[in-house]
Amino acid sequence: MAIHLGANQYGKAENRVVRIYRDTPRHQIRDLNVSTALRGDFEDAHTTGDQSDVLPTDTQKNTAFAFAKEKGIGAIEDYALTLGAHFLDASPAAQGARIEVEEYAWDRIQVDGQGHDHSFVRTGGGVRNTVVNVEGRGAERKTYVVSGISDLVVLKSTGSEFHGFLKDEYTTLPETNDRILATSLVARWRYDTRRTGDGSVDWDKSYDEIKGLLLSRFATIHSLALQQTLYGMGSAVLEQHPEVAEIKFSAPNKHHFLVDLSPFGTENPGEVFIAADRPYGLIEATVTRDDASDAGSAWHAVPGFC
Amino acid sequence: MAIHLGANQYGKAENRVVRIYRDTPRHQIRDLNVSTALRGDFEDAHTTGDQSDVLPTDTQKNTAFAFAKEKGIGAIEDYALTLGAHFLDASPAAQGARIEVEEYAWDRIQVDGQGHDHSFVRTGGGVRNTVVNVEGRGAERKTYVVSGISDLVVLKSTGSEFHGFLKDEYTTLPETNDRILATSLVARWRYDTRRTGDGSVDWDKSYDEIKGLLLSRFATIHSLALQQTLYGMGSAVLEQHPEVAEIKFSAPNKHHFLVDLSPFGTENPGEVFIAADRPYGLIEATVTRDDASDAGSAWHAVPGFC
Amino acid sequence: MAIHLGANQYGKAENRVVRIYRDTPRHQIRDLNVSTALRGDFEDAHTTGDQSDVLPTDTQKNTAFAFAKEKGIGAIEDYALTLGAHFLDASPAAQGARIEVEEYAWDRIQVDGQGHDHSFVRTGGGVRNTVVNVEGRGAERKTYVVSGISDLVVLKSTGSEFHGFLKDEYTTLPETNDRILATSLVARWRYDTRRTGDGSVDWDKSYDEIKGLLLSRFATIHSLALQQTLYGMGSAVLEQHPEVAEIKFSAPNKHHFLVDLSPFGTENPGEVFIAADRPYGLIEATVTRDDASDAGSAWHAVPGFC
Amino acid sequence: MAIHLGANQYGKAENRVVRIYRDTPRHQIRDLNVSTALRGDFEDAHTTGDQSDVLPTDTQKNTAFAFAKEKGIGAIEDYALTLGAHFLDASPAAQGARIEVEEYAWDRIQVDGQGHDHSFVRTGGGVRNTVVNVEGRGAERKTYVVSGISDLVVLKSTGSEFHGFLKDEYTTLPETNDRILATSLVARWRYDTRRTGDGSVDWDKSYDEIKGLLLSRFATIHSLALQQTLYGMGSAVLEQHPEVAEIKFSAPNKHHFLVDLSPFGTENPGEVFIAADRPYGLIEATVTRDDASDAGSAWHAVPGFC
Repeated sequence: MAIHLGANQYGKAENRVVRIYRDTPRHQIRDLNVSTALRGDFEDAHTTGDQSDVLPTDTQKNTAFAFAKEKGIGAIEDYALTLGAHFLDASPAAQGARIEVEEYAWDRIQVDGQGHDHSFVRTGGGVRNTVVNVEGRGAERKTYVVSGISDLVVLKSTGSEFHGFLKDEYTTLPETNDRILATSLVARWRYDTRRTGDGSVDWDKSYDEIKGLLLSRFATIHSLALQQTLYGMGSAVLEQHPEVAEIKFSAPNKHHFLVDLSPFGTENPGEVFIAADRPYGLIEATVTRDDASDAGSAWHAVPGFC
Repeated sequence: MAIHLGANQYGKAENRVVRIYRDTPRHQIRDLNVSTALRGDFEDAHTTGDQSDVLPTDTQKNTAFAFAKEKGIGAIEDYALTLGAHFLDASPAAQGARIEVEEYAWDRIQVDGQGHDHSFVRTGGGVRNTVVNVEGRGAERKTYVVSGISDLVVLKSTGSEFHGFLKDEYTTLPETNDRILATSLVARWRYDTRRTGDGSVDWDKSYDEIKGLLLSRFATIHSLALQQTLYGMGSAVLEQHPEVAEIKFSAPNKHHFLVDLSPFGTENPGEVFIAADRPYGLIEATVTRDDASDAGSAWHAVPGFC
Repeated sequence: MAIHLGANQYGKAENRVVRIYRDTPRHQIRDLNVSTALRGDFEDAHTTGDQSDVLPTDTQKNTAFAFAKEKGIGAIEDYALTLGAHFLDASPAAQGARIEVEEYAWDRIQVDGQGHDHSFVRTGGGVRNTVVNVEGRGAERKTYVVSGISDLVVLKSTGSEFHGFLKDEYTTLPETNDRILATSLVARWRYDTRRTGDGSVDWDKSYDEIKGLLLSRFATIHSLALQQTLYGMGSAVLEQHPEVAEIKFSAPNKHHFLVDLSPFGTENPGEVFIAADRPYGLIEATVTRDDASDAGSAWHAVPGFC
Repeated sequence: MAIHLGANQYGKAENRVVRIYRDTPRHQIRDLNVSTALRGDFEDAHTTGDQSDVLPTDTQKNTAFAFAKEKGIGAIEDYALTLGAHFLDASPAAQGARIEVEEYAWDRIQVDGQGHDHSFVRTGGGVRNTVVNVEGRGAERKTYVVSGISDLVVLKSTGSEFHGFLKDEYTTLPETNDRILATSLVARWRYDTRRTGDGSVDWDKSYDEIKGLLLSRFATIHSLALQQTLYGMGSAVLEQHPEVAEIKFSAPNKHHFLVDLSPFGTENPGEVFIAADRPYGLIEATVTRDDASDAGSAWHAVPGFC
């Protein structure tokens, strides 16, 4: 019987890189969770245990920290692209490198109405992330950037309906034209740098605007279903951001059930709810351009979206 | 051999009460995690299984939701006091009631520079909470309010030293006069309503101001140790808030270790750190007034502080 | 600008289905976490909000519970196949159904050396799971079964080396011929029922044997790298289980670092370690047959493996 | 205004100490989570930042690891007692030391029916722990040992009733004489070494027997309420274990709700349940001897039980 090694990948996950910029008394902080991985022709490492082609995960870790100083950390997309290209170059047997970066946001602590120079408080409102894939060598090199946001917890207390759905013998759900709609949004969008004039993207600006757009559209779309809300949010991003080829969502429908207070003689016209944990609806959707470029390896090993 | 029932308590934990105020198109949301418990003379329930003195935890749950509508939810302290008094009255065998409430904060989503009427995004920056204990009947009734904040993650990138400590044969820690200081703060303070002019406290105002004060003092105190920082923060609260009798802190020292980049010929003057998970220092401290009132049952079953 | 709906999926996640078999005084318990989803031509639901093709996630939930009684729960693979076929039939617009089931194991509590009739204790040692995909209608129907185990935490205190690896300017890791090797294993294998004589698989027997084989090979393989250990484990499964077409692993290298006790004049010859949390190595590998059947949609939406 | 430092404590939490015994080819593993703390007269450290009385948490960490080799790890109670006495002696300003140890259990991997020499698999079935407090110096030294188990998840599929309870206007719970009873048990018992003939306790034997007794009584007691089950379990421990002065329980009532299948024409006589997450009942109870010794500082800073 003949067997062989198939798809494989190895790396160092969850390097908690914290970079302080302290060139002036007004410090800046970048707080990252960095995961790196290489994939390719690592047959010997698996079959005979010969590690001569394997750049250790410990070396990958060292590099992630060293580059935080040597190359600096600009936008997480640039930091990831630099790491990915480096690892692929440093590993002749590798065919691809994958770099994932999460960034945790901090605000300056307010003292007498001013943001403090070197004291910070962690904020919520979503975690920015990127997954970069780099493949090929020399002129064949291809890079893919998928950026996104997770843990963006949003809720509408009205402006959400759900009715007219398919029914079968197991359907008991009543139709409603007023419910709470809530989710912990994960959105990831694929950049297509060929769609910008000069092949470059202002990553930070793009992220900020897309996050703002997702939020405002969630707020303003009158929802007939979470699917329709997501599609509307994604359409807005594609319409206003030529640098984005497609956008994917994963959105738990975090149910808020109206509590029956009638046994106590109390009416409850959409005012008191119990927030449920499990089960939850889970809606996943892609909104894409008709003329989107080929995705290639862009979605390789993107958590929950491949 | 003679045995008996000792301290006991029962209740319903983690009722996820969500209350929407929708009297006008501009909705308000209150998002709570409510835990209630009764304690007292419940010997029969334990020894013979006779439940005639036991108000079921299911009834406690119903009441927490019903009161959200019938009594409304003002400050979480008032909601907890109302629930506590009710449960003690409803349960003749009980000697005390304990109500714990956490409140999750939401911001209005910004649309065209305006906060939306009915769409919200969850924010970070700490979770407000209160633990209320109610004991006694009629003229003997006593109430205790301990409020606080948890998950307040703060960091200073400089202004923190640690040296001059006790050394023994297992000490290897180098002294430092510049390090990162970071913690996920838990603070809880005991109110003493007799210290206010009219016996009342503006709970929301007090909370907002104390949170602001904790943050600003964390920022501005030049730290010689996390203990000293906490003491300074607590002192400030007692100095400016006569309604507070004492304040307790539990603060993990979330270590950020400077990464050694010298093997790569790179200097690292306080710029690149690894954020460690475990172990962590854990500092717990109380700052109290010399003339603080007796705590009584105030700290009964307060998580991590009793 | 033209845009359209791309890949999409919706369903109810994490239905906690507990089924008691109580036909005799000796009860049996099946404790499941069930997630179901449909994918396909749901353009209207997204673009216009018309839900007439959408079988609600609430209905999916009802069905998962109802089938636990009406159809019973045999092997989780059979339960998932039954649900998947039903949902696809119940949803004319769907092109595929995906059913994921985790099963938590319980042992009978021992009383006087006998397993009790109706009292159980949860055990560890890994969580069994399956992901079933069903596609097509009538004669075109195809079914895919990927089963596996997660949370199988194993450790070798010796018999593990790591050396001879690729080095670059960021490499500081010393080579070792004796270290702790530990992981929290996730393994998932794709069944190919055409490889069995009669097209059927004894799911329970196959699972038990594969789990046993994975454990014993982890124990007996002298490790030169986690990659080589995983490959050896996978090879053994393919060699002894003709019903398996391929097997995939995701294995964090849970580092145990030798503690330097030399400052205290104490030697530490492989005896005292600190178990680290983050970062960790992460090794992913597939072992496959040269003549494996086409995977089709088998790995569609398999967490961490697509 | 005069303020001062009140109760305080500092230490290093969650040292993940793994100790391999490899004197013979048949290795043994001890896998611990160790938290240490000192409390006492640390006013200067807090008020002026003078750390000359403070044995750093880093030193405490070093000692926990060094002692794992130098003193060895027998029963976790002995290891904790040794550490506690050492830290109090090493810290003149301290008045008390608190040591908490959790131990994770591993089984040998079975290979050909034999437990392997150096390969292990993590098991479930509860986590053993101890909290040791040491106070006083010289002849005044007092030691307190509270040991226990957590995460012991148990379930009865019948033999559990709940009725005859107190009712008020918010009561809707139906009475039942057959339900599932399930909990994730935390039990902690205080040892009183003066109750044994020679003042010593065989910690391992005592733990194993008490764990077995808790399980068997949970199984065999016909439950009229979780309170009554816990009391019966605790009584059995006190009756059979003279070395135990009192025992405390914290037990979430993990609700399993019978699913209503009647809309589908299906009966559900106690067979299909949904396991709920939140809210849950929470029952806490102490069973104590009439002639129990004074608890002193035994329950100081015992998580959830002080």
